[in-house]
Amino acid sequence: MEIYENLRDLAVIIAAAEVFGLIARKIRLPQVVGQIIAGLIIGPCVLGWAGNTDYIKIFAEVGVVLLMFSAGLGTNLKTLIKTGPVALLMATLGVAVPMLLGTLVTMIFYGFEAVGTAGFYKALFIGVIMTATSVGITVQTLKELGKLKTEIGTTIVSAAIIDDVIGIIVLTVVIGVAKGTGTGAGEILLKTLLFFVLSGVVGFGLYKLFSFLDSKYPHMRRITIFSLALCFALSYIAEKYFGIADITGAYVAGVILCNIKDSGYVDSRVNISSYMFFGPIFFASIGLKTDISGMTWELFAFSLSFVAAALVGKIIGCGFAAKVTKHTWKESLICGIGMMTRGEVALIVSQKGLDAGIITAEDFTPVILLIITSSVLVPILLKVLFKSNKGLSAGKMAAISNND
Amino acid sequence: MEIYENLRDLAVIIAAAEVFGLIARKIRLPQVVGQIIAGLIIGPCVLGWAGNTDYIKIFAEVGVVLLMFSAGLGTNLKTLIKTGPVALLMATLGVAVPMLLGTLVTMIFYGFEAVGTAGFYKALFIGVIMTATSVGITVQTLKELGKLKTEIGTTIVSAAIIDDVIGIIVLTVVIGVAKGTGTGAGEILLKTLLFFVLSGVVGFGLYKLFSFLDSKYPHMRRITIFSLALCFALSYIAEKYFGIADITGAYVAGVILCNIKDSGYVDSRVNISSYMFFGPIFFASIGLKTDISGMTWELFAFSLSFVAAALVGKIIGCGFAAKVTKHTWKESLICGIGMMTRGEVALIVSQKGLDAGIITAEDFTPVILLIITSSVLVPILLKVLFKSNKGLSAGKMAAISNND
Repeated sequence: MEIYENLRDLAVIIAAAEVFGLIARKIRLPQVVGQIIAGLIIGPCVLGWAGNTDYIKIFAEVGVVLLMFSAGLGTNLKTLIKTGPVALLMATLGVAVPMLLGTLVTMIFYGFEAVGTAGFYKALFIGVIMTATSVGITVQTLKELGKLKTEIGTTIVSAAIIDDVIGIIVLTVVIGVAKGTGTGAGEILLKTLLFFVLSGVVGFGLYKLFSFLDSKYPHMRRITIFSLALCFALSYIAEKYFGIADITGAYVAGVILCNIKDSGYVDSRVNISSYMFFGPIFFASIGLKTDISGMTWELFAFSLSFVAAALVGKIIGCGFAAKVTKHTWKESLICGIGMMTRGEVALIVSQKGLDAGIITAEDFTPVILLIITSSVLVPILLKVLFKSNKGLSAGKMAAISNND
Repeated sequence: MEIYENLRDLAVIIAAAEVFGLIARKIRLPQVVGQIIAGLIIGPCVLGWAGNTDYIKIFAEVGVVLLMFSAGLGTNLKTLIKTGPVALLMATLGVAVPMLLGTLVTMIFYGFEAVGTAGFYKALFIGVIMTATSVGITVQTLKELGKLKTEIGTTIVSAAIIDDVIGIIVLTVVIGVAKGTGTGAGEILLKTLLFFVLSGVVGFGLYKLFSFLDSKYPHMRRITIFSLALCFALSYIAEKYFGIADITGAYVAGVILCNIKDSGYVDSRVNISSYMFFGPIFFASIGLKTDISGMTWELFAFSLSFVAAALVGKIIGCGFAAKVTKHTWKESLICGIGMMTRGEVALIVSQKGLDAGIITAEDFTPVILLIITSSVLVPILLKVLFKSNKGLSAGKMAAISNND
């Protein structure tokens, strides 16, 4: 494939994403739903006009990295710290409940097998696949609705970040036990701890450096470019050296810079690149990835139960965590639904299970259905829930400015 | 290579390009020179921190496409038409003179051989390699100096566009004759003609459509996104179906939209993405591509003569064309120097010669030297020449607004 041929894919994707985004808005759906459907329609499932090539993947990856960087930049540190414990509880229950439900559903379909057998580990692993929330779509929806910077918004984003880490630990433990190679959980915990401690220490230094740059050269290109370089570097370092998702690194980079004077300026610059190219490509790529040609009726029945378990699991787990920490019923439901989105990470986890011989290629189909269902449902449900302020406490839903 | 690993390259490239760009400005060199040197330093030649991977290539390609799109958007149609004949003459002589000089220099080094022998074709082909101007760096330099929208700026850009087409025709003829498969010049001419006629006709319809969109939804995301999609689509179509460089398609897309009310708005949006990511990556990638590990003393001597012939050839050819069309000496020199830059296209032409068995892999070294020398020299020389207005006619150097 010649380099220039990618320009066709870019043209088709951004035009289709915009057209469907506009249609979605016309019929009062969140724009992001339109963009995902655009990907479905131009992708291998329907028209086959564009594929999820490696080139599209890198644009999509930059897209979600920028999205999380922007979420980080808009964070209010005080709120982040205040919501930390709630987010931790929400992440923990949001991992535990779907994992249990997923294991249960698989056993109901394929038989209850004794602990230690291949069937048992398969069921357990399918539970593991359900654990990791992919927060990108929720972030974009909350942004569209103007709710990202609220206390609830911050709680959801940080819960999703923590949930990712817990998910990785669970994944490693399950694979380790299933293959009999030991858990490795200690090492991951240590690495994760090290990452956040280092981010705090180095981050403070970087914050001082950027504040200095900022006061000397406000509103200049260099501040945007160096911020962006920091975002990319931290994304890379998180994944390469600490085994933490790159988007977590991007979010942390944003949080490091959220208190510099120009954080809003940088964010607006990042947002322009984001909405022009990278964002639409990321959302459309979710649809582009969707290929369910291997579907059978039996698999379809299992897939439906799988999807239901994964969605309900997050509502129960995260919603319960929110409810016991003094949120209203509606807020708890918002938290549960906000955490329902699954994406890339579920596929990566599945791939690891396939590589380890725990699950089979056929098990990817329910995962893909889960990704597409949650991606389309969550923005719609969130929009409905945010329609009126009834049942929302004013304090938790007020937009908080960065430099509050 | 995992997708996320590209984030490291992106971080390193944009940070290095910005640092060296700032240093360049400090010592009063054009910023773009700093960005190219950044690529040289972090590339395989010196540090080896980043390579010219396929992923970097697509970002770089989008970079030069956006650059040309932006140049098109800033074009004044009247000036473009007015300068057309001058640009055509400049392009023709700018192809002929370097080609003759290149052939001559090669014959001086490797012996004069009879017409029709392999040696003769090799010499002729090395002349062909010198023909195509890569105008990206000149565009960026003129932009930095605020001279892109002047009459001279427009002349140089359109001459470079035409020069590209002539270069392709010459290339096809020479390869056809050398391989005895016929010239194929007629077909290319026809295709080229068809491309510009179609661009005119379809372009007028698109212009009306965008004007309508523009009047209905001014300053909205959709206008930027659809413009961008048009730019990518036309770039792709130009190269895929008409054999014309993608950047020519991008420029034409810009020209089509240059008279809509929001052309300045779209341009400013494109520029933000351009300076944040794509531009620095494009300029740094010129340095990243540079690898001269196969250098010998004999080759070095030839390379120097090759570079000199290629640079002087453009100054004589284009400068003469400018001088006979009533430009001052200084303006003529500016035109000649502005047209000196070579890039990607020279490498693509070389590759075609290698594939056809006319030249050898060793012949790439002088081409790489030419690219890097011209890329660094042209911005510096242009800056020096534009330092004072002495010797420049006011009319030709005044910035012209789009909607003039």
